[in-house]
Amino acid sequence: MRQDFRYWLDIPVRWADMDPYGHVNNAKYFTYCESSRMGWFEAIELDGFREASQHGPALVTATCNFRRQVHHPATLDVGARASRIGSKSFQLEYELYHRGDGHLVADGSSVVVWVDYGSGQAIPLPDALKERIRHYEGLED
Amino acid sequence: MRQDFRYWLDIPVRWADMDPYGHVNNAKYFTYCESSRMGWFEAIELDGFREASQHGPALVTATCNFRRQVHHPATLDVGARASRIGSKSFQLEYELYHRGDGHLVADGSSVVVWVDYGSGQAIPLPDALKERIRHYEGLED
Amino acid sequence: MRQDFRYWLDIPVRWADMDPYGHVNNAKYFTYCESSRMGWFEAIELDGFREASQHGPALVTATCNFRRQVHHPATLDVGARASRIGSKSFQLEYELYHRGDGHLVADGSSVVVWVDYGSGQAIPLPDALKERIRHYEGLED
Amino acid sequence: MRQDFRYWLDIPVRWADMDPYGHVNNAKYFTYCESSRMGWFEAIELDGFREASQHGPALVTATCNFRRQVHHPATLDVGARASRIGSKSFQLEYELYHRGDGHLVADGSSVVVWVDYGSGQAIPLPDALKERIRHYEGLED
Repeated sequence: MRQDFRYWLDIPVRWADMDPYGHVNNAKYFTYCESSRMGWFEAIELDGFREASQHGPALVTATCNFRRQVHHPATLDVGARASRIGSKSFQLEYELYHRGDGHLVADGSSVVVWVDYGSGQAIPLPDALKERIRHYEGLED
Repeated sequence: MRQDFRYWLDIPVRWADMDPYGHVNNAKYFTYCESSRMGWFEAIELDGFREASQHGPALVTATCNFRRQVHHPATLDVGARASRIGSKSFQLEYELYHRGDGHLVADGSSVVVWVDYGSGQAIPLPDALKERIRHYEGLED
Repeated sequence: MRQDFRYWLDIPVRWADMDPYGHVNNAKYFTYCESSRMGWFEAIELDGFREASQHGPALVTATCNFRRQVHHPATLDVGARASRIGSKSFQLEYELYHRGDGHLVADGSSVVVWVDYGSGQAIPLPDALKERIRHYEGLED
Repeated sequence: MRQDFRYWLDIPVRWADMDPYGHVNNAKYFTYCESSRMGWFEAIELDGFREASQHGPALVTATCNFRRQVHHPATLDVGARASRIGSKSFQLEYELYHRGDGHLVADGSSVVVWVDYGSGQAIPLPDALKERIRHYEGLED
């Protein structure tokens, strides 16, 4: 639900986001979620919590449920929020609303793992980052 | 597993599929799955099973698990298969292998609903289409 | 120059518009110009000037000059204007400015031909459309 | 003409390359040209001619003429060749043919400048690179 989300990004749909069916192509929803995720990373100032320059986030899974077709022109409000924090990963949830009529057009989720890009291995989330996310989202320990 | 898939499409990765991380962007995997899905639709001759021109498939959910990074240049073998057939929908599964080293780089799934595009409502899958899919995939009734 | 343009569209750059060089990929500029062109079509109410449903615009050439790199996050102001009207075609020009520093980051042009989609042949621009464009852009006969 | 080109890349059109007009979107042709350009860079082993790691190519202009519509499924043969070598830049030309019927569907060109990415300034093309391109393309001094 909308009130569960603190972070929102408004994304204008581009004409070229549509496919031969005349509606927004399914892969574009993942780009919309990515845009919102990148904005959320910035909102929590994720870069400041890297303990080494080669440590950072990596997407390991992404899911989207397509609930209503979207046609250009339209603007979507795309919320992102961390819903669960693990030892080496956290889960983000997304909700995409049509600004005009307020309808939920899609929702989704993704799992972000903290990775040492050098070794390619998952590593523990920095404690300060976990604390930061909990604080930003109002999650309990 | 590879032997579970009858339909395969080889997809050359394009340089522009990569993002600032220098690897294939997450949204592109959904385009790869879509390409394979469209090829599978053609392989089962889905168009011939429409009982009306405004009846046809609609994607309602898509998921992908990203198991290994992919870098251009590369060619992926992308399998698609129906794994479950319901009354108004069926589920497709995908596996994406790197042609060079044979590694599984991603897998995913999606649910395809049979829709009357006029009303936007889900309608029963034509029996002949269900039979066709079962036969193509070697599924039991 | 900015003052030559009446129509402007602001386009937020998406993170995924960037490529492995870490800047906006060249093909995306054509999508930005397309977005502005579609907005310009709407601004002049082009659809109302079709003399038959199968008559309409077709792009026959597109050019872009890349003057400065663009990095996410950024918003571009993308102007479009008709600069020349022929018997069966008109030319559009584009200028793309970085909203933050005001720099021109790219400019381009395209030729749009009026086509009978049925035959695929170029046909004369409706006089009323030519007049409409001249009026909108303040062009002389 | 086809015989003017030594380098060719075959590019399968993806379903998602099409837009609501049901044909390949104009911006995708620039991605096709880019794929061919990257392959040509590899064919001439451009990386070996960098005199410093921060020296390399930058695209400053791109043009495409759209001659025939392309629809999925299709495979395009996309040729790239250097047509002119300057002191700090060279020009590439492209021709895109439909593999099925052999028709020219588009042609285009781009100017590639040799740049010091550190300063962002154009610098002279290494003599060895100019010689390499002339030799590869059979151009005279």
